[in-house]
Amino acid sequence: MPEPIDFYFDFSSPYGYVAAHRIEDLAQRHIRAVTWRPILLGPAFKISGNRPLSDQALKGDYMWRDVPRLCRRFGIPFARPEPFPIATVAAVRAVYWLWDRDSEQAVAYAKAVYRAYFADGRNIGETAVALAVAGEVGLDAESLGAALQDPALKDRTKGEVEAAIKLGVFGSPFFFVDGEPFWGGDRLPLMDEWLARGGW
Amino acid sequence: MPEPIDFYFDFSSPYGYVAAHRIEDLAQRHIRAVTWRPILLGPAFKISGNRPLSDQALKGDYMWRDVPRLCRRFGIPFARPEPFPIATVAAVRAVYWLWDRDSEQAVAYAKAVYRAYFADGRNIGETAVALAVAGEVGLDAESLGAALQDPALKDRTKGEVEAAIKLGVFGSPFFFVDGEPFWGGDRLPLMDEWLARGGW
Repeated sequence: MPEPIDFYFDFSSPYGYVAAHRIEDLAQRHIRAVTWRPILLGPAFKISGNRPLSDQALKGDYMWRDVPRLCRRFGIPFARPEPFPIATVAAVRAVYWLWDRDSEQAVAYAKAVYRAYFADGRNIGETAVALAVAGEVGLDAESLGAALQDPALKDRTKGEVEAAIKLGVFGSPFFFVDGEPFWGGDRLPLMDEWLARGGW
Repeated sequence: MPEPIDFYFDFSSPYGYVAAHRIEDLAQRHIRAVTWRPILLGPAFKISGNRPLSDQALKGDYMWRDVPRLCRRFGIPFARPEPFPIATVAAVRAVYWLWDRDSEQAVAYAKAVYRAYFADGRNIGETAVALAVAGEVGLDAESLGAALQDPALKDRTKGEVEAAIKLGVFGSPFFFVDGEPFWGGDRLPLMDEWLARGGW
């Protein structure tokens, strides 16, 4: 079996949201699985000196014009969320906890979290909201809520974020195909080609 | 006649270099002309708080892996230039001076400048090199050299850069299609679609 595609994303990243709607189709065309790896860009930004796009004049304006345009193109529901950006540590931890138990549930949950924020305007940075979303997709929110307090899960999440940065992840979405890095949702067509040709 | 596509680029931008090899094919498919508009990203970076990619840890490493990969894909000659990045004001001024006289010459010159830097490793930031390149593509380097001293041309160039920033240009390459902004060479496929459909 070929290696899964690694899909790194921040729940507060609109381009990650768009990519979450598109990556599975691409992967399936190449008979690849996808490993969903939520991260927190804050620590990466500290190293790279980068900042959220929305904090950058000109670039921020462009982003808020571009993201709705992309969503219209791909039929993805979108409403500009407030507050933005947010830290989403509870949702990130939840995904890793779920992933270890049932990766399909983890993916369903990750999609629901993204939708809650970028389509429904709910503040997924609040633990209560992150747990409510879990309940809405049929997960055991109570067990999840208890798990979020587990220091081992906190360490696990921290380790995942640190490992991502070590691999060179500095933005969202960010992908690896057989060790080859691709940054940005715009790179999906090129990644598609890379997979078809086995690189060049 | 439909409006030309505006192509903004910095001569020190590797992604601008790649786009310079690709924009004309795209434009021709849609029976559009291209207006080549060299800029200097320095002033835009001052407003946006952005910095050259190469100055950013992680992102810089990614760029130097990504650009050769793109160039291999599209059959574009590439050798990582040193020094990098550089300020290229003489070459920018030269393009505007040429454009007003013969836009095809201006485009031929712009391509030669890019090639000199990103394929042949010549420091196009030096006025002597910028003029030598003009001579090599059959232009009158002596007249051009005299023109570069003209305060009116300096003002013209400054005005072009300021106008670009006012329009929201913050990176290279940057395109406008009928007023619609597209940032980054990765956006060419989407721009292609936008042109085919007349937007969405």
